[in-house]
Amino acid sequence: MFTINQVLAAVSLAVASLSVSAVEWQALPTKAPEPAGNPSTPAKVELGKMLFHDVRLSSNGVLSCNSCHNVMGAGDDNRAGSIGVKNQVGGRGAPTVYNSAFASVQFWDGRAPSLEEQARGPVTNPAEMGMKSWDDVVVRLKAMPEYVKAFSAAFGGEASVSADNAVKAIAAYERTLITPNSAYDQYVKGDKAALTEQQVRGMNTFAEVGCVGCHSGPAFNGPTLPEGTGFYQKFPTIENGVLEAKYGFTADLGRYEATKNDADKHFFKVPTLRNVALTAPYFHNGKVQTLQDAVKVMGKTQLNKDLTDAQVADITAFLNGLTGEFPKIEMPRLPAYPNQAFAAE
Amino acid sequence: MFTINQVLAAVSLAVASLSVSAVEWQALPTKAPEPAGNPSTPAKVELGKMLFHDVRLSSNGVLSCNSCHNVMGAGDDNRAGSIGVKNQVGGRGAPTVYNSAFASVQFWDGRAPSLEEQARGPVTNPAEMGMKSWDDVVVRLKAMPEYVKAFSAAFGGEASVSADNAVKAIAAYERTLITPNSAYDQYVKGDKAALTEQQVRGMNTFAEVGCVGCHSGPAFNGPTLPEGTGFYQKFPTIENGVLEAKYGFTADLGRYEATKNDADKHFFKVPTLRNVALTAPYFHNGKVQTLQDAVKVMGKTQLNKDLTDAQVADITAFLNGLTGEFPKIEMPRLPAYPNQAFAAE
Repeated sequence: MFTINQVLAAVSLAVASLSVSAVEWQALPTKAPEPAGNPSTPAKVELGKMLFHDVRLSSNGVLSCNSCHNVMGAGDDNRAGSIGVKNQVGGRGAPTVYNSAFASVQFWDGRAPSLEEQARGPVTNPAEMGMKSWDDVVVRLKAMPEYVKAFSAAFGGEASVSADNAVKAIAAYERTLITPNSAYDQYVKGDKAALTEQQVRGMNTFAEVGCVGCHSGPAFNGPTLPEGTGFYQKFPTIENGVLEAKYGFTADLGRYEATKNDADKHFFKVPTLRNVALTAPYFHNGKVQTLQDAVKVMGKTQLNKDLTDAQVADITAFLNGLTGEFPKIEMPRLPAYPNQAFAAE
Repeated sequence: MFTINQVLAAVSLAVASLSVSAVEWQALPTKAPEPAGNPSTPAKVELGKMLFHDVRLSSNGVLSCNSCHNVMGAGDDNRAGSIGVKNQVGGRGAPTVYNSAFASVQFWDGRAPSLEEQARGPVTNPAEMGMKSWDDVVVRLKAMPEYVKAFSAAFGGEASVSADNAVKAIAAYERTLITPNSAYDQYVKGDKAALTEQQVRGMNTFAEVGCVGCHSGPAFNGPTLPEGTGFYQKFPTIENGVLEAKYGFTADLGRYEATKNDADKHFFKVPTLRNVALTAPYFHNGKVQTLQDAVKVMGKTQLNKDLTDAQVADITAFLNGLTGEFPKIEMPRLPAYPNQAFAAE
C-alpha cells in the first residue's frame, strides 16, 4: 500500500530526466497563499511578528522562533543542529522559515500540515523552547497589557489571547517571509540578462540530469499541492557506502519517526532550493558543509550520477541565482511586564 | 586616598535631600554625544547594526550582542543573569544598552571607559559569547564579502575589517539607541499635562527624599561627566541584615573586582533610571523582582529611610514616566557565508 506522497515521488523519479525546454519554469509568486481559516490582516501580521521574535515564548526567556529561524539571515541558523534551552542540540537542522509558506507540509518529516500547526511545536518541545505548556505561554502573554491589546486588535475581544490565535498570528507573519524576484525569477519573467551564461548552463544541467524531477515548482520543492498534502522523497534513494560512512544520512528514519509506517522510512519532505546558497550546512543532519558537495551528493544518491566538477559548478552557480529579495522588516516593539520581572527559568 | 568617583559620590550624598525646585531637571538630549575619535556616519551605524545583531560573533553562532541587550525590548534580557554559550549564567544582570551612550563608563563596575571598549568584552568572554579571540571573529567576518564591503564603506579600504573598527561601528550603532521624549521629558520641556498628578507627586518625593542625589542628570545616572570618568556609589551604603539575608547584595564586591582597590569594595556605577519600569529584575544581581520593591530597597540602603507605601507608589509612578520613545529600527540583513557553512562550535 502506497501513500499519495510515495506515488507522487515515484512519478517524479519516472520523469526525472527532462530537457530544459520541457520544464515549466515558474517564478515565485509575490504573495504567499493563505488558508481560508486564517486570512492575513496587518494587525495579525504585526502581532505574529511580535510573537515570532519574543523570547518570552521560551522557558528561559532567551530563545524566540527567530533564534533558529533567523529572518535577518536566510531564515535558519546555519547550524547542523539548533541549540535549545539548557544547551540541548537538536537532531535535525532548522529549515528556513523563508518561503515555508509555499510548502504544503512543515518540518523535515512533514508532521505539521500547516504553518499554524508547525508554530505550535517548538514552543513546548523540551529540547527547543522548553515551555511546559501553551497555557503557561498564555499566562505570560496575558500579563502584558500590550499583548492583550494586540490580540484584541488582531482577533477581536480581550478573550482572544490564546494558543490558537498565537499560532495563527505567527503563521500570518511567516506568510510575509517570502523572497521573490531572484535573478532566476527575473530571468523566467523575460530578462534574459538576469542570469549569467554559467547560470543558464547550470539551469539546463539541473533539468537534464533530473534535479527538477523533485525540485520543481515555484519554490523548487515540488509541485504546488493543497495544504497538508506533502511532497516527500526517499533520501538516500540509492545506497552508497562511501557517502554513508562520511555523512551518516541513514541514522535518521525521517518521516517514519512521525508515522511509524515502514514505507515512510528515510522519506523526507523535499526542501525548497530558494536561497539555498545561504543555508549551509546541508541536509537533515547538516553534515555537508558546502553547496558544491551537496549537489554532488544529490547527483549520486538521488540520480545515481557522478556529476562532473563542471556540472557541479554550473548547478551551484544556478542555485545562487535562486537567492531572492528579502523583505525589509521593522523590528517589533516587544511588550513589557511593567514594573516586574517575568518568571524566567 | 579617595578616587574622584568617591569624592563625587560623597558630594552627592551630602546634597541628597533637595527641594524639588532646587533640582535642575533635564530632558534627555535627542542625540547622544560622540567621541572625537569615532564620529558617527550612516555607513558606520549600519555596519554596527549588522555586527550587534550578528550571531556569528559568538562561538556557537547563536548569541549576538542583542541576545542579552534586546533592542526589541528595553535593551536588556529581563533576567537576573544572562545566558552565555554552553548555558552558562552570568553573575550580574545585563544593563540596558538603551541610553548607555549617556554613561561615562560601562559595565556595572565601570571597567570599560567607553562604549567601544565595552563592546570588546562579551565577544571573547568564555562565559558570554565565547569566541577564542577577536582574530577569530575577524577571520569569520573576512569570509563574508558583504562584511568586507560594509567595513570598506564605513572605514575605507578593504583592510578595514578589524576588531578596532568592529567595536567602533557597534558603539556608533549604540549611540542611536536612545529614548528621548518620555512623559517626563515632555513635562520638563513645558507640557505640564504630560505627567499625571501622582507622577508629579512622585517626582517631588524623588527629589525630597534624596533619590536625585545620585540619580541626577538627563539620564538619571548622575552628572554628565567626560567619557571614562565614571560615577559610582556604594551599594548598599547602609548595611541591613534583613535585606542582606533576603537579597544577598554584598556577595558581589562591585568595582573592587575590576580595580582590586579596597576603597572600591561594593561600589557600582549608578545606573540610568530611563525605562526602568521595563527592565526588571533589579540591581546588579537581579534579585529584586518589582520596581516597587527596588524603590523600597533604595530608600532603606541608600537613604536610611523607610518610604511609606504611598511614597513608593508615587515614585514608581514617576519612574514609569521615564519610559521613552524607542527608535524604529529596520532589521539588518546579515551577510552570508555563500555556499558554505561557517565553523560553529
